[in-house]
Amino acid sequence: MSLCLLNPEAIAEDRSSIDLIIKGDYIVTMNDADQIIRQGAVAVESGTIVAVGPFVDIDRRYRAKETLSGEERLVMPGLINGHSHAAMTLLRGIADDLSLNEWLNDYIFPAERTFVDPEFVRLGTELACWEMVRGGTTTFVDMYYHSETIAEVVDSCGMRAFVSATVIDQKSPDANDAEESLKNAVRFVTKWQGKHPRITPIFGPHANYTLNASQLRATRDAAKKLGAPISIHMAESMFEVEYARDNYGMGSVSMFESIDFFDGPTIAAHMVWPSEQEIRILAERNVGVIYNPTSNMKTAAGVAPIVRMLEEGVAVGIGTDGAASNNDLDMWEEMRIGGLLQKVNRMDPKVLTAKTVLSMATRMGADAIGLADSIGSLESGKRADLIQIMLDDVHHLPTYDVISHLVYVTDEQDVDSVIVDGSILMRDGRPLRIDRERVRQAAAALAQNIQIKMKEL
Amino acid sequence: MSLCLLNPEAIAEDRSSIDLIIKGDYIVTMNDADQIIRQGAVAVESGTIVAVGPFVDIDRRYRAKETLSGEERLVMPGLINGHSHAAMTLLRGIADDLSLNEWLNDYIFPAERTFVDPEFVRLGTELACWEMVRGGTTTFVDMYYHSETIAEVVDSCGMRAFVSATVIDQKSPDANDAEESLKNAVRFVTKWQGKHPRITPIFGPHANYTLNASQLRATRDAAKKLGAPISIHMAESMFEVEYARDNYGMGSVSMFESIDFFDGPTIAAHMVWPSEQEIRILAERNVGVIYNPTSNMKTAAGVAPIVRMLEEGVAVGIGTDGAASNNDLDMWEEMRIGGLLQKVNRMDPKVLTAKTVLSMATRMGADAIGLADSIGSLESGKRADLIQIMLDDVHHLPTYDVISHLVYVTDEQDVDSVIVDGSILMRDGRPLRIDRERVRQAAAALAQNIQIKMKEL
Repeated sequence: MSLCLLNPEAIAEDRSSIDLIIKGDYIVTMNDADQIIRQGAVAVESGTIVAVGPFVDIDRRYRAKETLSGEERLVMPGLINGHSHAAMTLLRGIADDLSLNEWLNDYIFPAERTFVDPEFVRLGTELACWEMVRGGTTTFVDMYYHSETIAEVVDSCGMRAFVSATVIDQKSPDANDAEESLKNAVRFVTKWQGKHPRITPIFGPHANYTLNASQLRATRDAAKKLGAPISIHMAESMFEVEYARDNYGMGSVSMFESIDFFDGPTIAAHMVWPSEQEIRILAERNVGVIYNPTSNMKTAAGVAPIVRMLEEGVAVGIGTDGAASNNDLDMWEEMRIGGLLQKVNRMDPKVLTAKTVLSMATRMGADAIGLADSIGSLESGKRADLIQIMLDDVHHLPTYDVISHLVYVTDEQDVDSVIVDGSILMRDGRPLRIDRERVRQAAAALAQNIQIKMKEL
Repeated sequence: MSLCLLNPEAIAEDRSSIDLIIKGDYIVTMNDADQIIRQGAVAVESGTIVAVGPFVDIDRRYRAKETLSGEERLVMPGLINGHSHAAMTLLRGIADDLSLNEWLNDYIFPAERTFVDPEFVRLGTELACWEMVRGGTTTFVDMYYHSETIAEVVDSCGMRAFVSATVIDQKSPDANDAEESLKNAVRFVTKWQGKHPRITPIFGPHANYTLNASQLRATRDAAKKLGAPISIHMAESMFEVEYARDNYGMGSVSMFESIDFFDGPTIAAHMVWPSEQEIRILAERNVGVIYNPTSNMKTAAGVAPIVRMLEEGVAVGIGTDGAASNNDLDMWEEMRIGGLLQKVNRMDPKVLTAKTVLSMATRMGADAIGLADSIGSLESGKRADLIQIMLDDVHHLPTYDVISHLVYVTDEQDVDSVIVDGSILMRDGRPLRIDRERVRQAAAALAQNIQIKMKEL
């Protein structure tokens, strides 16, 4: 500091020139030490975090082309939505208060067969990306139809995503059966793999009740051959587990294990009904589990044994599921509801702390999807996926504990800026890459059309 | 209309002059027929709703001094927060992830004895009123200390409230024991009763484990004599029910019934553990029950049998509890979480619909606190307590069903204007009666002081 006072020019020369500095009254690093830095900053160059520390230190070492102010703001890793069907945002609220089975078979599958085409997927994914960026989500794991179109939208909106090509053995929006959908998936993964810094193409077999054992096995073989991860619904409902018992004489997870389905990276969404023995299988096989509390509560699928899975060392992330069964893509609410549900379910308020819940949406979530080396915490060398939260809203007053606020209070509307791979996607609460007026008008028009035609279905 | 075209002046003369017209693309009336009026309006004169209907009809009959635009807005009754401890907003997030018993005895009661004085209560209640108005709550049932100060803040902030004077048999911020706190309560209720259009002074005996049977009985006698309602925590935790069994040989609700506690209007908060027989007592005795799902989940108190109570005809409202155990005063989230929790707890997604949940926060909530004749729905003759919701946020796109959106999606930040007793408390998202900068700074300063001193406790 004394040197700085004596000869500021010389110091300025010494500083490295970098792209971006993001300041914050608090930097919630989510690093190994759960460090929270007061009056800190994150330095970013070429999409990579090059330093995290007190602002005075960062300022001494770096000169940035652009600096985001940190006043009344908190900086943290971007949220990771581990399971979603982004385009279904266009079906938000179209059918509520139904079981998963009724909802899927009586409303969603028929509506999808009728209305879902690339145009629907493009618009729905744009709407979802707008909502996710606004709410501080930087990475999502998506599973839907017309994956080529999804990838194009992810590219243009600037987010990071795992895009699953859906494999399903029924007439769907982009295939007639399992064979055709698997062929599509192989084509998609082959085309996109390793080609884009933010897009990971993966396989999305739907579930054990929409694909038989040999189709599931064929999907794993294809994924293994290409070295691609798999995202799948697993042990979501009692219906699914009973289906496995009736057809394979064992529980749902055991059935997948019996066909060596876990012989490659697997992201298993929902996981409401694993047995104790199956939880150990998940841990041994490094299956990443995604907790979807709102969807599971809304369809009354059940309460996932998250605490037991964490105890056994399973990496658990959090996901919103699609907006048609949630009914939004709000990861803050998902954290909050997910934590509260475990407490009351276990009748123990200490069983899941705010800190662990926050990790499930960031660091542990990254681990669950296999990206722990590159995202999920603010550390040198990781990709620059981070967000700023405004702390000036009335619901954050006063502030004793920022982790408590983030999990129990913060709303999507508190997110101020969003950076993915070093690029600013939202600034001062305004998403920069989405043509909001066009998306708004197109979504309203399409929904009106769907509502009229749904009556005829 | 043809007359209007021929001679607009003459028509204008015929229209009654009134104070206020609130327009909306949707008017969600919550009336007997669950009517939703498209392109509607609510006409208000002297704090009373004089008409509700299509805007073209209202416009034909009334000329208003002030009109609130309805573009992309929905109009509905203001939310009723049936159980809160407003001033505890100053302790938001000070101690999380603890059981009710530990939280109360190891953190909250000691902190309150040390820090809570009229100044704390004034500031905390102002902060809470700001948060509640911002989020669309127009009426709250409060229970805290220094009730005189609470009433003064309610008067100045413009909200409607039931202000309970706490009766408790321990050293508290405003009394040394049950006798003194009951004396204070009688003085407070006597002073305020019938004196203020928006403030109802009531008695707030704390719970069965902080008052013995004769103290509870004495409180009911005093309330009966003055014709005032009672608000109380009841059957909140297993601890409380066990306490009743150990000390009175019966469940908590039965114990209250055995001392004729229900011989007057009673608002019973939490009600997690009534037995089947006790649910029938609640129905027969017209006890209003307030559901506090977030607080009950966070302290792991349990899941209230709301569906069973509704089936038996109990009027159930919704409350946030204090912000120290929630950790905000967000009634939207309370509705959402409350509905979802019942579904998963009963393993039946149809057991509580969005419509019923919305009623619990409005019309049925009004019934639960004994104000069904004057608030809770938009109908001629009721008090003008209503709110406007903006529907233009990304999470409301598209819109198939506004009731679904209100319960499953809407956030506090969507509330655009708030009217209580005909007065506008918030307009364009800006609360008008709260000096926000003063409250913000004072709350931060007080919290810093508390945080330093808490370490010494």
